[in-house]
Amino acid sequence: MSKKRIAILTSGGDCAGLNAAIRAAVHRAHRLGWETIGLINGTAGLLKDPAQYRTLTPNDMDSYVMRMGGTILGTTNKGNPFAFPMADGSTKDLSGKIIDGFRSLNVEGIIGIGGDGSFAILNRLAMQGGLKMVGIPKTIDNDIGMTETSVGFDTAVAVATEALDRLQPTAASHDRVMILEVMGRDAGHIALAAGIAGGADVILIPEVAYNLESVAAKIKEVKNTGRNFALIVVSEAVKTLDGGKLELEYMGGEKRYGGIGQYLSNKISDMTGSETRVTVLGHVQRGSQPTYNDRLLASAFGVKAVDLINEGKFGRMVAWSNRQVIDVAIEDAIKAYQQVDLNGTLVHTARALGISMGD
Amino acid sequence: MSKKRIAILTSGGDCAGLNAAIRAAVHRAHRLGWETIGLINGTAGLLKDPAQYRTLTPNDMDSYVMRMGGTILGTTNKGNPFAFPMADGSTKDLSGKIIDGFRSLNVEGIIGIGGDGSFAILNRLAMQGGLKMVGIPKTIDNDIGMTETSVGFDTAVAVATEALDRLQPTAASHDRVMILEVMGRDAGHIALAAGIAGGADVILIPEVAYNLESVAAKIKEVKNTGRNFALIVVSEAVKTLDGGKLELEYMGGEKRYGGIGQYLSNKISDMTGSETRVTVLGHVQRGSQPTYNDRLLASAFGVKAVDLINEGKFGRMVAWSNRQVIDVAIEDAIKAYQQVDLNGTLVHTARALGISMGD
Amino acid sequence: MSKKRIAILTSGGDCAGLNAAIRAAVHRAHRLGWETIGLINGTAGLLKDPAQYRTLTPNDMDSYVMRMGGTILGTTNKGNPFAFPMADGSTKDLSGKIIDGFRSLNVEGIIGIGGDGSFAILNRLAMQGGLKMVGIPKTIDNDIGMTETSVGFDTAVAVATEALDRLQPTAASHDRVMILEVMGRDAGHIALAAGIAGGADVILIPEVAYNLESVAAKIKEVKNTGRNFALIVVSEAVKTLDGGKLELEYMGGEKRYGGIGQYLSNKISDMTGSETRVTVLGHVQRGSQPTYNDRLLASAFGVKAVDLINEGKFGRMVAWSNRQVIDVAIEDAIKAYQQVDLNGTLVHTARALGISMGD
Amino acid sequence: MSKKRIAILTSGGDCAGLNAAIRAAVHRAHRLGWETIGLINGTAGLLKDPAQYRTLTPNDMDSYVMRMGGTILGTTNKGNPFAFPMADGSTKDLSGKIIDGFRSLNVEGIIGIGGDGSFAILNRLAMQGGLKMVGIPKTIDNDIGMTETSVGFDTAVAVATEALDRLQPTAASHDRVMILEVMGRDAGHIALAAGIAGGADVILIPEVAYNLESVAAKIKEVKNTGRNFALIVVSEAVKTLDGGKLELEYMGGEKRYGGIGQYLSNKISDMTGSETRVTVLGHVQRGSQPTYNDRLLASAFGVKAVDLINEGKFGRMVAWSNRQVIDVAIEDAIKAYQQVDLNGTLVHTARALGISMGD
Repeated sequence: MSKKRIAILTSGGDCAGLNAAIRAAVHRAHRLGWETIGLINGTAGLLKDPAQYRTLTPNDMDSYVMRMGGTILGTTNKGNPFAFPMADGSTKDLSGKIIDGFRSLNVEGIIGIGGDGSFAILNRLAMQGGLKMVGIPKTIDNDIGMTETSVGFDTAVAVATEALDRLQPTAASHDRVMILEVMGRDAGHIALAAGIAGGADVILIPEVAYNLESVAAKIKEVKNTGRNFALIVVSEAVKTLDGGKLELEYMGGEKRYGGIGQYLSNKISDMTGSETRVTVLGHVQRGSQPTYNDRLLASAFGVKAVDLINEGKFGRMVAWSNRQVIDVAIEDAIKAYQQVDLNGTLVHTARALGISMGD
Repeated sequence: MSKKRIAILTSGGDCAGLNAAIRAAVHRAHRLGWETIGLINGTAGLLKDPAQYRTLTPNDMDSYVMRMGGTILGTTNKGNPFAFPMADGSTKDLSGKIIDGFRSLNVEGIIGIGGDGSFAILNRLAMQGGLKMVGIPKTIDNDIGMTETSVGFDTAVAVATEALDRLQPTAASHDRVMILEVMGRDAGHIALAAGIAGGADVILIPEVAYNLESVAAKIKEVKNTGRNFALIVVSEAVKTLDGGKLELEYMGGEKRYGGIGQYLSNKISDMTGSETRVTVLGHVQRGSQPTYNDRLLASAFGVKAVDLINEGKFGRMVAWSNRQVIDVAIEDAIKAYQQVDLNGTLVHTARALGISMGD
Repeated sequence: MSKKRIAILTSGGDCAGLNAAIRAAVHRAHRLGWETIGLINGTAGLLKDPAQYRTLTPNDMDSYVMRMGGTILGTTNKGNPFAFPMADGSTKDLSGKIIDGFRSLNVEGIIGIGGDGSFAILNRLAMQGGLKMVGIPKTIDNDIGMTETSVGFDTAVAVATEALDRLQPTAASHDRVMILEVMGRDAGHIALAAGIAGGADVILIPEVAYNLESVAAKIKEVKNTGRNFALIVVSEAVKTLDGGKLELEYMGGEKRYGGIGQYLSNKISDMTGSETRVTVLGHVQRGSQPTYNDRLLASAFGVKAVDLINEGKFGRMVAWSNRQVIDVAIEDAIKAYQQVDLNGTLVHTARALGISMGD
Repeated sequence: MSKKRIAILTSGGDCAGLNAAIRAAVHRAHRLGWETIGLINGTAGLLKDPAQYRTLTPNDMDSYVMRMGGTILGTTNKGNPFAFPMADGSTKDLSGKIIDGFRSLNVEGIIGIGGDGSFAILNRLAMQGGLKMVGIPKTIDNDIGMTETSVGFDTAVAVATEALDRLQPTAASHDRVMILEVMGRDAGHIALAAGIAGGADVILIPEVAYNLESVAAKIKEVKNTGRNFALIVVSEAVKTLDGGKLELEYMGGEKRYGGIGQYLSNKISDMTGSETRVTVLGHVQRGSQPTYNDRLLASAFGVKAVDLINEGKFGRMVAWSNRQVIDVAIEDAIKAYQQVDLNGTLVHTARALGISMGD
């Protein structure tokens, strides 16, 4: 009789800690006497015939791999398989093919490591095809609901804070205002945490509409105390009080993430007479080596995901809550987008330190 | 009329994030229109006449200082002031002199950044002298009760994990068993977190009595899977099942922290035939640059401590609980030594991954 | 009788290691029984009346400061003092005022830490005013002639290499071509060193005119080997075979440094069908903590600069040559712009590894 | 007709950059149309029947591997194969068996990455067996002659300097003298470079006999300037003026590397009344991620080694000299142990900064 086996895949934008989560699942499955297979490039691997995967053993994962960013399985974020964009501009429903692919694997259950977008697709596929799925939340943005934190966030903040640590001395050497644009999509978690830790004077996040006058006033206030530099952290999707009309104009009318740093740099320079410079942090936030926190979280999540399969609990997402790993309904998590709590300790801390939130 | 003012001091073993906590308090006090003075070398600065301190301004703290390990105020752990060890071998009660020193400062309240030992002394001084004290918990060991975490712990684990990342390749190159001895006093938090994150095969902590046979068996098991190296993390104060008699013998009969790594190295080498090497991490766990998490925690704590003084709430320790900064009675915190929760997620994760805890 | 004293200033763009150089000079001068004063904001401090400076002592420099990026003295790159740009658009010759400022300091000699631009100005001022100057070369670009390397270069390459280390995993996770734009002005030293060390497939430097077809061909070649990602490093001032007409067009007709990464990303995506992403590293290359090499070089240079003053040798630049610190005529160094040696070991290594230089 | 092929092996103590050297050789050989095989565990792989090796392709080496410490091939330092220590205490000449193993590989030439000890053995084997060998020098100690530097040294110094950066704040917080014991065998290169870069007050190296009085005097001098901490770096094999009799006594009469830090700590504490702490850095100096410099050097060396095979030049060691990779007779390199140049720039810099060398 052959061994029982489970499958694991990574989906959506990569981040640090994915390999540590895969490793933990492989180890846990191994302790239960199961085999683990890893799908190549997420659901894209299932569109191939035969489905593309590799068998994963504990020893494969234990040296370099668990310490590295990215995902050894590859990932995909090429589009919604229910309406997949084809080369000719049309869309096609590939869900049936993916479900067939899943079935061909002959597994007890599937662990999907993804963000809310991936979970929405995977869950719909699971329900349509009778698949048995468990989710592990990952995102540098920390915007997945029902969990305090997700794999990849801690590392992204660490990289952003390190950037502020590097920008401060050059800002001080040249009497400059340094603007750091960070990722985060529609949540300001990276900016807020890195901004406080990195000594920012201004932190702009999507949850708080900002106005340029407030920002400029803060910069002038800092200069008036005799400090010759200032640091601004801005999330990629901030909006002004007018609902972001100004930024939209600057971006050429097209809503997109990123690019706001330069706009801000130009404006603040004009309004304050300060020399400004902008740094757009970009993809180094994703690919860095995972911090110990991300590896710890990924390990706890990987173990729990396999435990859930072992208990026959599907349609669940593992989550972190009050020092424990728990599980929640994946449907609930998909609906619960997590933004910064404006009444929480971090926002209070920022404001109490005199950091301007731009309002 | 002169400004109101508060005092701040650091006490006990240093760690990363102290300067960030001091900085946050200075900023917060400044926003409230208060002045902050920092005592030099903790209570030792109060034994001088006049009391030694320096005035701290926000701009003093905002560039290098908040990003650096250690404490710009200096600290002391030279002994209990109620029975201070004198050069001639006698002890002397210096508490009255310290209380006089405190009074001479003419402050609204005192923030003491310390561990449980420092808090016990400071709280006793406060009660005896009618002093108004608020505590900020710091310790790399994370053994202070009533708070999920303390300033300095995150950085210590990061440094310990990094050491494992560096030991793994050399272990694998030479077919070796690498033993990393970490700090933590009578709590295994550093070893447990770093061990899971750093891919250890064995994690020995004071909370779990170990026996050498179990450790040796795990090492042999790893080798039998075809993996040519193994990693062991050991807390400085672990004990064998016989209550630590063996280690005591090895240490020459004197109970102390540290030194166990070499003992383990000798024994495991003998019992498994493996080549072993030991690394004692030591003081680099203390002095490293604070991680963003330690700076974030320190910032939230520094703000809250000043807020408590502002609210007239004394005899309190700020604490972290369920994503929030709260405050607890400092007396309760002193009594509640925090060891590793053997039923918690981390221990479950370790065991589920097949990590041996030595039992 | 008062102590002899020397002055030190930092000028031009900041980089890592400036503080270590200042520290070494202060220590060396102190051993000779001299005092060191540091000018505030380079020559800009001399335009104030009285001249702005601070006295520097060894103990000021020995803890955080020597380990930090930037310059505690501040710097200036606001323009040529012989034709200083005034607010009204006119220019003014401020050299007389600066020379007066220098003279008012009453020093044995002046150490100027700068790049070729700063040296040209400082040397002209020195000659015009009879000043006694010694130069320490610093630049992240490593483009100063007559010295193998300058303060700040090693750190800049380390930061750029680290960025490639972080981009590789995310590139591999998403089947992407990652483009890293680095600084360097008209020399490709940073790109070449970081590119080889960071595993780049293509390295574009100003010294080698590139054509897009060659770059695209290399990307396709990589893909054809079965590797799913590629890494490109591009210097901020590269030029195509037509003398950079294409880039100029893309930049809107205005020659400037930087911005080429996005152009390349668009083109390579079009030509290869690969998904591309660009990261512009920016000012984090300047402000990072100095590597040990930069601190070592800065220390040797700081000592030598003071030794030259002690020997009465002026108009000299300290330099690194064949494992030794030497001194050269500052006039010669100014004239000798150092670009990448196309016949040197690094270019040979790159080509031999199959790295495309775009030609 | 089958492809030509070359073999590569790593031998002796591991260090950072070995994988980058292997990778460079693999790439270079691939460009020449050759295949590369890597021996498993150095010459130990040749004692197996059949000889143990793996075929290496460029794509195997290009993602994580080239960035990681250690060697993916494994290494051996189990003893001299001409008199190999057997389990029963006798020795046996295994050289014939190794030579047979080499011959069975059917390669154009062999690249040995090793230190002087490994080279002596490999060269003797090569001459006895008519093997065609080229050496790449690697050692954290930088003690191989005829080359300015070897693979692994730069990373070891970086790790040692980082340790000083971490020890300084905790030293300053507690008014302590921190002693860092580093590796280096009978050469003080690591201690000297890290000590200058890391702000040490005392640097003890094997090339300079020290006396405790001088060290104690320097510590007292530092304290007298008002600085409250001091940093000492000590090489593992330093000797006192009496030829090391004192240390030998402390070590229990047996000459060995390491352990001197604790001796020094005890003595300096007694002689100065200062609180001292010792950190023995150990194996983290070996296994860290290679710095860009080590990867650059390893890349140039790997390319050159293959080029030498291509040119039919054997019995050579690649070397770094005056910004170029060259080749020298391996016999000459073996004889030329490289210690610190007491008349060189680094020693002059150290002394000029007021650093005590213990004499």
